[in-house]
Amino acid sequence: MAATELFEVVTGGGITTPQGYQAAGVHCGLKRVRHDLALILSATPAACAGVFTTNLVKGAPVIWTKKVVKKGIARAIVVNSGNANTCNGPQGLADATRMAHLTAELNNLSPEQVIVSSTGVIGMPLDMAKVEAGIEMATKALSRDGGPKAALAIMTTDTKPKEIALKLELSTGSVCIGGMAKGSGMIHPNMATMLAFITTDAAVDHNTLQTLLRRAVDKSFNMLSVDGDTSTNDMVIVLANGASGVAVTSEADLSLFEKGLTHVCVELTKMIARDGEGATKLIEIRVTGARTEADARKIARAISTSNLVKTAIHGHDANWGRIFCAAGYSGADFSPDKVDIFLGDEQVAAQGMALPFDEDAAKAILAEDHVIITLDFHDGDAEAVAWTCDLTSDYVRINSSYRS
Amino acid sequence: MAATELFEVVTGGGITTPQGYQAAGVHCGLKRVRHDLALILSATPAACAGVFTTNLVKGAPVIWTKKVVKKGIARAIVVNSGNANTCNGPQGLADATRMAHLTAELNNLSPEQVIVSSTGVIGMPLDMAKVEAGIEMATKALSRDGGPKAALAIMTTDTKPKEIALKLELSTGSVCIGGMAKGSGMIHPNMATMLAFITTDAAVDHNTLQTLLRRAVDKSFNMLSVDGDTSTNDMVIVLANGASGVAVTSEADLSLFEKGLTHVCVELTKMIARDGEGATKLIEIRVTGARTEADARKIARAISTSNLVKTAIHGHDANWGRIFCAAGYSGADFSPDKVDIFLGDEQVAAQGMALPFDEDAAKAILAEDHVIITLDFHDGDAEAVAWTCDLTSDYVRINSSYRS
Repeated sequence: MAATELFEVVTGGGITTPQGYQAAGVHCGLKRVRHDLALILSATPAACAGVFTTNLVKGAPVIWTKKVVKKGIARAIVVNSGNANTCNGPQGLADATRMAHLTAELNNLSPEQVIVSSTGVIGMPLDMAKVEAGIEMATKALSRDGGPKAALAIMTTDTKPKEIALKLELSTGSVCIGGMAKGSGMIHPNMATMLAFITTDAAVDHNTLQTLLRRAVDKSFNMLSVDGDTSTNDMVIVLANGASGVAVTSEADLSLFEKGLTHVCVELTKMIARDGEGATKLIEIRVTGARTEADARKIARAISTSNLVKTAIHGHDANWGRIFCAAGYSGADFSPDKVDIFLGDEQVAAQGMALPFDEDAAKAILAEDHVIITLDFHDGDAEAVAWTCDLTSDYVRINSSYRS
Repeated sequence: MAATELFEVVTGGGITTPQGYQAAGVHCGLKRVRHDLALILSATPAACAGVFTTNLVKGAPVIWTKKVVKKGIARAIVVNSGNANTCNGPQGLADATRMAHLTAELNNLSPEQVIVSSTGVIGMPLDMAKVEAGIEMATKALSRDGGPKAALAIMTTDTKPKEIALKLELSTGSVCIGGMAKGSGMIHPNMATMLAFITTDAAVDHNTLQTLLRRAVDKSFNMLSVDGDTSTNDMVIVLANGASGVAVTSEADLSLFEKGLTHVCVELTKMIARDGEGATKLIEIRVTGARTEADARKIARAISTSNLVKTAIHGHDANWGRIFCAAGYSGADFSPDKVDIFLGDEQVAAQGMALPFDEDAAKAILAEDHVIITLDFHDGDAEAVAWTCDLTSDYVRINSSYRS
């Protein structure tokens, strides 16, 4: 992607880089030490769009927030980490509602314009005394440079915050898109315990924003797998408050804005994959020459979900048979005897058969912290890219004792 | 299952327990030290049935053996471990064909009646000099008590052989069913690097045998997941040579024979799960009260495939939220607010919500080497059972360096 020509990455940027947003991140005691409550406030009502978990078991905040997004306008986002407020029955929904109402009350908003999100353990009642104190603290702490602290406060097992901001020159002026996200286990296509919040000071109407977000998510978060599990609480939310005074309406501007939004989503996706639980590297799977895009996506996703591929790459083992095998059970249609497979630039299989290749060169490629696997099916011109991380003993260690 | 009333388990029994079978297992050098070539011979032509991997990328032996099974009669099974003979192009198929022809020649059979099977690394040419020497050695070593050695010779990362034999009293006499299988990674519904060979001295025609096997596999191997990967080489084969002189024809006899065949498949399935790569325990997921059997199967399989569930149980962490979450993304339809969840006998969730439960009791249950998880959906009367193992650091260690 010739990203640098289309837009400028703002160093150190995040959700408060676009105009008209304040944010805060505080510690209210849901987690022992680290920040656990984030608040984002738009100075004016913002068009909003969202994409949510497809899990039948949904967190109470998801139920609340879907209603907000349906109406299309939001002023604030309140997020707690440490407790997912899921499987808590009617009390869970009452608590999510209370989070929206208290945020609204303290910030002079309508509760119907407050997006609520929670992530963490499932099936434990939310400690509302702590959450309420947190919302009060966060409201007082709101500032134009609060983005980084908010990014810290949404983390669970993430080892680092995930932020990005871009500046785009549209035909009628410049706009910013900022984003933050959290991973890092239970992540799989169609939203896992994966939260992403994106802000922009461009003016984009709700329906357009929803369409652009859906397409951007399909090329980014929906092509991300850390461990094949899809969580109950995931959401990607974008707010567009128009504070730049620049409206995105012309076809060229919409196209550029979509590229920017997609870039933000893809970069956050890569940050999540790279910081997957126990991960030591980012793995990128590129499928080309597939018959249909649906086939390309199935193949890329099957490979990105394979424990055997992910452990082999962890061990720097050029075991391309596992990659090919995952393609084979993906459900996609292809001719096995046409497939070429590459690890980085090193071709390891041609026409579905082993090539003699330089094992040391392959080992060196797999030892890098960003491994690119390419499969060319010579069967059409459809493409897809998926991201994952390696599977390590640390993943097991982290997930064997998460709750306790 | 009131197994003991219906049939008798033969202590130390396996594929040579039924009458009219000989077997051998030898070391021909595909693996460094351990046995790597197995041969099973029926004294007379046996009806055969088979179920094969659904992976689009198929091992050469699978292509050969499907043709044998289609014709419905087999005399011998030749299996090598250490090399899957997959992704080897036309040479691979020539080698599989050669294995059948040499076995036939040395044993005075028609090559079209020789089942060929290979398991091991993908994309490496088979060392045919070693395989041919192995087939000669195995032919010489054939004996009525060769079952245990054959069971050793099909192992890859298995830590122990997997064998069982049953004796059934049918209305016209008694018959035996014996079986052996290998796991233990890349195992997932619809046949993974999972091989099972079953023999019986009952007389059952090919079409009936195929129907009974398909149903037995659906309740056993197809409900088994070790790591979510489906391999290129899997097969379950059953031979029925009629050496007992007892034909299975009456409805009552067919029903009892099917129960026996299913029991053999289920017990081999459990042995594979328990010996999954790096596993420390067998996990059994029982779904009851689902709306449809398809839903029950989806739910049981989603839970059995969840890395998060499998690591939590490894860590003796009663994190039932992950179990419920996996049910939610399974694609099955249910009412989350009706679901009861049990770990062993300890109920941990009622109507989709947390129950206060005895954490120490739950920990003790999860520390056992056979953990039973039960979900009751109170939504119908459909049921399913799936099996898996815990996910451990040893799984990662084994699979990070399998090829090298």
